[in-house]
Amino acid sequence: MTDSASDADRQDPLLAAARLADADDELAFLRGEFELAEGLVYLDGNSLGALPAAVAPALTEAVRRQWGQDLITSWNTHDWWALPGRVGDVIGSLVGATAGQVMCGDSTSVQLFQALVAACRLRPGRSVILTDGSNFPTDQYLADSVARLLGLRVVRLHPSELAFRLSEHAGQVAAVSFSLVDYRTGELFDGAGITAAVRDAGAVMVWDLCHAAGALPVALDAIGADLAVGCGYKYLNGGPGAPAFLYVARRHQERLDLPLTGWNGHREPFGLAGAYQPADSIEQARIGTPPLLSMVALRAALSVFEKVELAQLRAKSLALTDHAIDFADQRLARFGVEVVTPRQHRRRASQVSLRLPDAYPVCQALIERGVIGDFRAPDLLRLGFTPMYLSHTEVYRAMTVLAEILADGSYRHPRFARRPAVT
Amino acid sequence: MTDSASDADRQDPLLAAARLADADDELAFLRGEFELAEGLVYLDGNSLGALPAAVAPALTEAVRRQWGQDLITSWNTHDWWALPGRVGDVIGSLVGATAGQVMCGDSTSVQLFQALVAACRLRPGRSVILTDGSNFPTDQYLADSVARLLGLRVVRLHPSELAFRLSEHAGQVAAVSFSLVDYRTGELFDGAGITAAVRDAGAVMVWDLCHAAGALPVALDAIGADLAVGCGYKYLNGGPGAPAFLYVARRHQERLDLPLTGWNGHREPFGLAGAYQPADSIEQARIGTPPLLSMVALRAALSVFEKVELAQLRAKSLALTDHAIDFADQRLARFGVEVVTPRQHRRRASQVSLRLPDAYPVCQALIERGVIGDFRAPDLLRLGFTPMYLSHTEVYRAMTVLAEILADGSYRHPRFARRPAVT
Repeated sequence: MTDSASDADRQDPLLAAARLADADDELAFLRGEFELAEGLVYLDGNSLGALPAAVAPALTEAVRRQWGQDLITSWNTHDWWALPGRVGDVIGSLVGATAGQVMCGDSTSVQLFQALVAACRLRPGRSVILTDGSNFPTDQYLADSVARLLGLRVVRLHPSELAFRLSEHAGQVAAVSFSLVDYRTGELFDGAGITAAVRDAGAVMVWDLCHAAGALPVALDAIGADLAVGCGYKYLNGGPGAPAFLYVARRHQERLDLPLTGWNGHREPFGLAGAYQPADSIEQARIGTPPLLSMVALRAALSVFEKVELAQLRAKSLALTDHAIDFADQRLARFGVEVVTPRQHRRRASQVSLRLPDAYPVCQALIERGVIGDFRAPDLLRLGFTPMYLSHTEVYRAMTVLAEILADGSYRHPRFARRPAVT
Repeated sequence: MTDSASDADRQDPLLAAARLADADDELAFLRGEFELAEGLVYLDGNSLGALPAAVAPALTEAVRRQWGQDLITSWNTHDWWALPGRVGDVIGSLVGATAGQVMCGDSTSVQLFQALVAACRLRPGRSVILTDGSNFPTDQYLADSVARLLGLRVVRLHPSELAFRLSEHAGQVAAVSFSLVDYRTGELFDGAGITAAVRDAGAVMVWDLCHAAGALPVALDAIGADLAVGCGYKYLNGGPGAPAFLYVARRHQERLDLPLTGWNGHREPFGLAGAYQPADSIEQARIGTPPLLSMVALRAALSVFEKVELAQLRAKSLALTDHAIDFADQRLARFGVEVVTPRQHRRRASQVSLRLPDAYPVCQALIERGVIGDFRAPDLLRLGFTPMYLSHTEVYRAMTVLAEILADGSYRHPRFARRPAVT
């Protein structure tokens, strides 16, 4: 086995490098924290993270003992009431926020609506929202919706145009809404520089961290972030539709003015007063009763992060994506495959996006062979790399299968033809 | 056993009546559908419904097989994508709505925000929102928030003043927001009459069904309802923070204009276009990715309703609350206990609220003796009756314990003194 492996290594330096990296991988033990079928190469953790082993027992406890036996008293006895803030603080520790600035709950869409309205209300008299015109659709839709409700207007731009647009609309920009990572290309934007430029212009920055939280270090406090949102089901592994989160920098909390005024966010939630008075802490970011079972799953999933430093995850993630990019450059260019993800580490998040004409059927053919990535219209094959449960040899295997599919043309079979994709 | 029971029956006609009713109870088998500790009398199903036995296995399947093994493909293969509409239709069948008019998701607060904005946008040029000034606080807070965003004003009233207020603000009322059941007193309002009056005035009616859905028949289509919301964790037994729902009458769906424009509600959600185009069906009421695990629990919980007709549940519910009211009238009045829930069946939902000066410590003393109700400031002991898992003798037992506590003054012990209540 060792001898034949050595033969193969001599034949394929990329495989040899992968094996060497795996042998040195201090994070390999984390694979055991996930229930993930052997043989599958899961490159879609940026859409739905794999199942942490801690989730099922935590849910059984929450369902059978807490809900089933202790019933309504669990809001006190099992601290259900405090859960959104507790989970928020754990997420905060992963995005560079000290305690008391992150609240967990609702969907990213709802949190983004909250953040955008609140951001614009922090800058009364200003009339423009800047949003990334290639941002995830919801981010754009909600900017439009909020602008309409508040009587503002939306200007779409690419983050690279920010300085120009801020000066073009000098004194008018209330809020800027960008994702820290481009969901299609995996490009990582300059969080510190953009935040500084936005604040210098007197505007409020709203970051969408969906493809960043849990994937790489995000230093919200350190970069002087204002507001941020993110989801729980990608690199945080919280399960399908896991609750999202909202970050509000402490300096904004006293004057924050959120539109979704549910009783959970009231200063005295159990006073049941008829007029809304927001809590003066991050508790004001609560809305209605949160989906406790989904939140319990997310809390259990986050426990995996206690076993590792984000810097270690980041280093491994970059090694994995380096490997995939090297492979693509050396062996897939001949098939018309273009790497659209930036090659510079500081501009790359935790995914590799490949542009190729038949990306949809190629993605389907990969899935059939146990390599799960996803497709983004019109021509991107998107591969997400979660360093917690991926090895270098798995990446090698995935790329090798991709090369085989492109070489033998098997993706052209009619069973891989387009159908509605749900991700 | 039988003989001594008969002796007791002769001594206590209320116990005899309870035993007789239990012997005739066609719904007694439903208790077996719940995991509920023996010996506990759970009168708080109007705050958090008990755990249906179907929930834990359904969650295990969703977590370990669907999420764990099938991962991202479950959105297609296990039909996760369709779940919010499917669960919505099941809830619809319990509130008198034919398929395609109810969407499940998010919290009641978020759904109410959606409904209120959409209602007011259906009546452009009108400037007033009428809301029940004794309604659940969130309903009032959100009316205020929506009015502020849309430049309208809120007028608070009691439902009994509706005709007067509609004529006072003739031609100006955009929307009316009431709960069908008063959460404190358990009063059931006249859904048909109120809806007709509101529509006659050219306004849009928004019903909050939190304390009605699953507790009694609600005929949304038949009464000509416009919009309605409700929660999943009270009489629907969906678990803590279970997703809520939004009903939109089919006639409004084409012109509906919702503010929370997440990509799930887009006409072509997977087209990822940069401009929002709502679906023309109830699918437009989707927002972001829903909390799937919590929704799976709710779906499993709703399966209990397949075994029974709502009319049967309603009949048993009224028999149970009749029993509690009779007991209070006959045996608790001497302790200063006043029944504030209406005695007429058509004006009573599925709870009995008792006014008494020491309601808080009495509630705590009851809990210690295995009778779980809740307290509503300043002086209400609120007892909810879920006919699915309550027997008449349990109600008798609960009321007997209450009588004992009031008679012996044990509730005056310092350990029952006030502390923050979370429910």
